Amino acid sequence: MPPGALPYRAEQLAWLRGQSHRRFTARTVGELISDCEQAGFDPASDEAANVREWRRQYDRATKVPPRLVEKLERTTAHAREAWREARKQSKFRLFKPHFDKILSLTRQMADCIGYKESPYDALLDDYEPGVTASALRETFTELRAALASILPAAVERSSRVPGDLLRGHYPIAAQQAFNRKAAEAIGFDFSSGRIDPTTHPFCSRIGARDCRLTTRYDETDFVGSLYSVLHEAGHGLYEQGLPQDEFGTPLGSAVSLGIHESQSRLWENHIGRSAAFWEYWHPTACEFFPDLKKLSPEQITAAINRVTPSFIRTESDQMTYDLHIVLRFEVEVDLVEGRLATADVPSVWNQEFEKLLGLKVTKDSEGCLQDIHWAGGMIGYFPTYTLGNLNAAQLMHSMASANPALDQELRAGVYKGVHSWLRDKIHRQGSRLLPAALMQSATGEPTRSHYQVEYLRKKFGGG
Amino acid sequence: MPPGALPYRAEQLAWLRGQSHRRFTARTVGELISDCEQAGFDPASDEAANVREWRRQYDRATKVPPRLVEKLERTTAHAREAWREARKQSKFRLFKPHFDKILSLTRQMADCIGYKESPYDALLDDYEPGVTASALRETFTELRAALASILPAAVERSSRVPGDLLRGHYPIAAQQAFNRKAAEAIGFDFSSGRIDPTTHPFCSRIGARDCRLTTRYDETDFVGSLYSVLHEAGHGLYEQGLPQDEFGTPLGSAVSLGIHESQSRLWENHIGRSAAFWEYWHPTACEFFPDLKKLSPEQITAAINRVTPSFIRTESDQMTYDLHIVLRFEVEVDLVEGRLATADVPSVWNQEFEKLLGLKVTKDSEGCLQDIHWAGGMIGYFPTYTLGNLNAAQLMHSMASANPALDQELRAGVYKGVHSWLRDKIHRQGSRLLPAALMQSATGEPTRSHYQVEYLRKKFGGG
Repeated sequence: MPPGALPYRAEQLAWLRGQSHRRFTARTVGELISDCEQAGFDPASDEAANVREWRRQYDRATKVPPRLVEKLERTTAHAREAWREARKQSKFRLFKPHFDKILSLTRQMADCIGYKESPYDALLDDYEPGVTASALRETFTELRAALASILPAAVERSSRVPGDLLRGHYPIAAQQAFNRKAAEAIGFDFSSGRIDPTTHPFCSRIGARDCRLTTRYDETDFVGSLYSVLHEAGHGLYEQGLPQDEFGTPLGSAVSLGIHESQSRLWENHIGRSAAFWEYWHPTACEFFPDLKKLSPEQITAAINRVTPSFIRTESDQMTYDLHIVLRFEVEVDLVEGRLATADVPSVWNQEFEKLLGLKVTKDSEGCLQDIHWAGGMIGYFPTYTLGNLNAAQLMHSMASANPALDQELRAGVYKGVHSWLRDKIHRQGSRLLPAALMQSATGEPTRSHYQVEYLRKKFGGG
Repeated sequence: MPPGALPYRAEQLAWLRGQSHRRFTARTVGELISDCEQAGFDPASDEAANVREWRRQYDRATKVPPRLVEKLERTTAHAREAWREARKQSKFRLFKPHFDKILSLTRQMADCIGYKESPYDALLDDYEPGVTASALRETFTELRAALASILPAAVERSSRVPGDLLRGHYPIAAQQAFNRKAAEAIGFDFSSGRIDPTTHPFCSRIGARDCRLTTRYDETDFVGSLYSVLHEAGHGLYEQGLPQDEFGTPLGSAVSLGIHESQSRLWENHIGRSAAFWEYWHPTACEFFPDLKKLSPEQITAAINRVTPSFIRTESDQMTYDLHIVLRFEVEVDLVEGRLATADVPSVWNQEFEKLLGLKVTKDSEGCLQDIHWAGGMIGYFPTYTLGNLNAAQLMHSMASANPALDQELRAGVYKGVHSWLRDKIHRQGSRLLPAALMQSATGEPTRSHYQVEYLRKKFGGG
């Protein structure tokens, strides 16, 4: 956006956000919901599920005054631009005044919504309904300890794989063709979706039967674009598996970020980064990328699974990723509960980062300024990435238990079984069940760290 | 858009268009306008200008029922996709049923709005308020005859310039840098605008102080991207010259397409395709594009001004461009006035095209199916392209009469004078005056074909 455009853009966004909030929280909407509640729908019906979820969302939204919503939106519009500049210059103090405002407005928001134990619970609820800070703390503490015990062995094993093993020449057109083939193989429907290039990969559904994925390309590296596509296609399969004719209603909508992320991680990591994947795809990949012919499937699998602690979350490996999240979660809770001042964020970040990942942060741009989330007012969002990882491992475990032929199917490049199991247990459910109940119904228990830890231990060895 | 997305997209568009129409035509809006009219604003004031224009737009809009607006929008959403396929296959019959629906709905629209002489007047009024079919017919008849008399000499002269004179290697990064330099030189403000790549060049203002231009690149040809940028920057200068704090009101909005196009054509053709332009820019261009060193400014000027009748309007030269428009205008009027059946459009098109441009159309994709406008329901839009050309020539004439140093300035690459004259006479006026009155106030007379004809005659010689 050109710099002169910011003031008006901030007003546009604040107005739109305010309108959307005012319309949804209008008295008429409440009356309509009450009427539905009195209509006596069968509690197991689609209608009842929609009404339950509308009621929950309405009750939450009506607690927040429109002016607060508008103010936060206007503040974040300015904060995002300040964050860009702060990150560029690696100067936290350029972002701090904006962060202070956001934090203060976010706390007001939490107070309006209300909470039992922690104001952070009220924020979490927006991204992952039903999850609390104390429950997360327990799960994350277990996870942190388990990861710490696996990490040294994983790093040691990875050190035997050269970091540049996969460097080569991978023309963009070949990457696009191969990615498309892979996305089609796992079930992404191109008659109601597309893949296009952008700076940051994303998945966005802009209407019924219109799901857009994006990725980015580097001619020396096919791994980045391929795994972005598998990740985003995982999100896309969820969006495409939602009941399309219910678009816009709870039944036609994804239930939470932690469930959404489980779908992307499952395809990206559990399917895509497995030995089985490369056993099947190696010959095809060699057709598209002749540079791969000199490598065996095992070498490729080892290379794409290298574990090396690094500064940037979005570039980190499967093993260290959740340690990045644990850090952000702890910082966020302390900020929101008032135990940490924004001025102290860089020093606390750097200290904890070293404890968790063994690296000394020397630039805030590679530390607490690396992510845009706080500038966008998204506090309580980060934990959902890890919940996604935990859910993915748990879903894979259940799926494997239910289907003894799963491993064989994956080695043969057959993804129908995975796809239809997920469609049945997760996708077509929409927001019929809240995340914990959905996981319970799909796997027999709510989200636990156990399956992810076991998966990583098996994959990377160690304690 | 993926094919499966069309039905929902059509409903989204119809709903949005309907909402926008219903909101603007609400009784409350009429009451607010009446209140303003009774407030006794000085007729020369900004407020009075806004109220006059709101009244005009309101009275026009309230004549059209929302359901008709929605129906047309839904129909065109489907028609655009059908047109894409019809053009691809060069089969008019795939588009015909959609075109029939559009034409019927458009005629209903014209009947609702009302007109004195021709239903086409009611349609024109949406793009060029105040213009009528009979006035256009008179202007276009003069223009057609004059162009026919100049064309042979222009073609003959051009045949001496090799068509591939400018072929070379022009790296995209160099084109981007040169285009930016040129856009800055003519006054495009990058602090409130950007240039990005797209398939089809456009200019769009998405908020106050946020004007986006696009272009497309071809490494063997810098001409396409440069002249698209000059064209779109001409639109952009108009948008940037409107009172930004009045964004969204008539005073802060461009008045018509014919005035808008005059701004793009003036910079693209009168400034950009002049000998003076290349006299000044030649050394700089050679720095960016070493392949140009072997050519003189005169050779470049001759090459970018080659006149050759061709099938595609958007690729046609300055001399034949308006003949394409004359054809479309005649076909449209006959369709809307009921003298021509859609089934006969291809044959009439091909016959008239040969008369006007001397070329036999063998594929509808290069004939009546080439443009998207009819599929988008834009009937009455084409003439504004030619009005833009006529207005541009007339404005240049007035500007030159008022400033004897103009030619000298242009040879020195000084565009301040042109820019500030246009800003004063056109840009900052917004929609204070309707097009004819605006041209009267800027040039002393309403739009005439005379200045464009004289300009072309001087430039290309002939009768």
